[in-house]
Amino acid sequence: VTDRGLAYGDGLFETMRIVAGEVQRLGFHLDRLLLGCERLALPHPGRSELENKIRQAAAAIDTGNLKLMLTRGEGPRGYAPPARPTPTIILLPARAPAPSVTELAVATLELRLGENVKLAGIKHLNRLEQVLARLELGDLDADEGLMLSTSGAVIGGTSRNLFAVYGGIVKTPAVDRAGIAGVMRRAVLERCAELEIAATECELTRGDLGLADELFMTNALVGVQSVNRLDQQTLASRSVAVRLRESFGAEPGGADG
Amino acid sequence: VTDRGLAYGDGLFETMRIVAGEVQRLGFHLDRLLLGCERLALPHPGRSELENKIRQAAAAIDTGNLKLMLTRGEGPRGYAPPARPTPTIILLPARAPAPSVTELAVATLELRLGENVKLAGIKHLNRLEQVLARLELGDLDADEGLMLSTSGAVIGGTSRNLFAVYGGIVKTPAVDRAGIAGVMRRAVLERCAELEIAATECELTRGDLGLADELFMTNALVGVQSVNRLDQQTLASRSVAVRLRESFGAEPGGADG
Repeated sequence: VTDRGLAYGDGLFETMRIVAGEVQRLGFHLDRLLLGCERLALPHPGRSELENKIRQAAAAIDTGNLKLMLTRGEGPRGYAPPARPTPTIILLPARAPAPSVTELAVATLELRLGENVKLAGIKHLNRLEQVLARLELGDLDADEGLMLSTSGAVIGGTSRNLFAVYGGIVKTPAVDRAGIAGVMRRAVLERCAELEIAATECELTRGDLGLADELFMTNALVGVQSVNRLDQQTLASRSVAVRLRESFGAEPGGADG
Repeated sequence: VTDRGLAYGDGLFETMRIVAGEVQRLGFHLDRLLLGCERLALPHPGRSELENKIRQAAAAIDTGNLKLMLTRGEGPRGYAPPARPTPTIILLPARAPAPSVTELAVATLELRLGENVKLAGIKHLNRLEQVLARLELGDLDADEGLMLSTSGAVIGGTSRNLFAVYGGIVKTPAVDRAGIAGVMRRAVLERCAELEIAATECELTRGDLGLADELFMTNALVGVQSVNRLDQQTLASRSVAVRLRESFGAEPGGADG
């Protein structure tokens, strides 16, 4: 109860998909975790030790997911971190079937995300905004919420990144002021480059989304999901999402993944 | 380890000063805690049960402080809160001498606070911004940091509220977009009214502070502290802070408290 993870949310987490005991896109998860450690000046036992611990925990799961939390550990009262913290590592495995939902109805939420360049992009333990967003979503007839930041920029879903397609060009909101740089988001951006689909990170407004031909969302556990409705707007096109899912194939997020 | 307090910072806290086994300004602490529960749709056992638990824990301490954490308790994976959560209540007592420092050197920090109207004012467990602020302060020659929000409004210290005096009129930053509505801040505003000192909550910029006759900061554990320096600006006046401290007398934050 004196862990700074509980007291201040002073830590990071990753939720990884496990298929046949193997962590999917482990390198991307480790990259983001270590970027978070750097941003928060959080000591860690080293990439290879983290990787070993994760692989060991994953081996005991067949199909499911593994959540890792890394906190700054125990410390005396007060926001100031101890000079030499001993980080706490928690691994929570869960067996779960592979997700099968490929379409989402999305509703724009009223709650706005605060902006902080130091906290943007990383997957830290301060997630009250997402909790409040899920509470707001609970009263709406939708599967996922669309979130904007205080300055009016579209950021993404409550637990998914967003992509919008305009005449074959893929755009995804920048996550340098709010939001999380998702592992599946990175996989999609890299796959677009391989498939020679133009893809950029940029600022998008809510109005911009109304002009999109296609919208899809991503998450490391559920892969690529088409948006079939955003508020009152019905979206018929699924071509880029389908192409990505086919390309990923048996990989997570793929048509057979 | 499956408590939502750790997973998402999904909870609230209060840090209360204890003198001779009695909680100081307990009513104010409970008011803020219950406002937080309302904002986060967090169930709680009721004001009187919370009050009893706190009084009981405080009775075992002579001089010191008591920290309470109230979380949404355990829940399944995911941001969405369980339908019927069982909140977790943690009480952490600490013996400590009464604080004696009455002056602070303050440095403006670069880190900006994100703005969120639902989270502003309440004392929730998402405190990474304050942790990063203390890290930044650690490299500076100052006792406390001055924090602005992303829109450029002055909010306060990393763990204190701020007051600025202009020709005998007391101003304190509004905390409706960022910051915490401190218990001592409320005590000062109420005491100003009793002493017929004009006092208002308003928006202040960093530039406004350069024109202040006097600056002071407050916190439930340390009371009223004069700012003797803000960056390069030396502040000579302490008259309102001294008057408040004398008025509080033996109360916490008072000259003999």
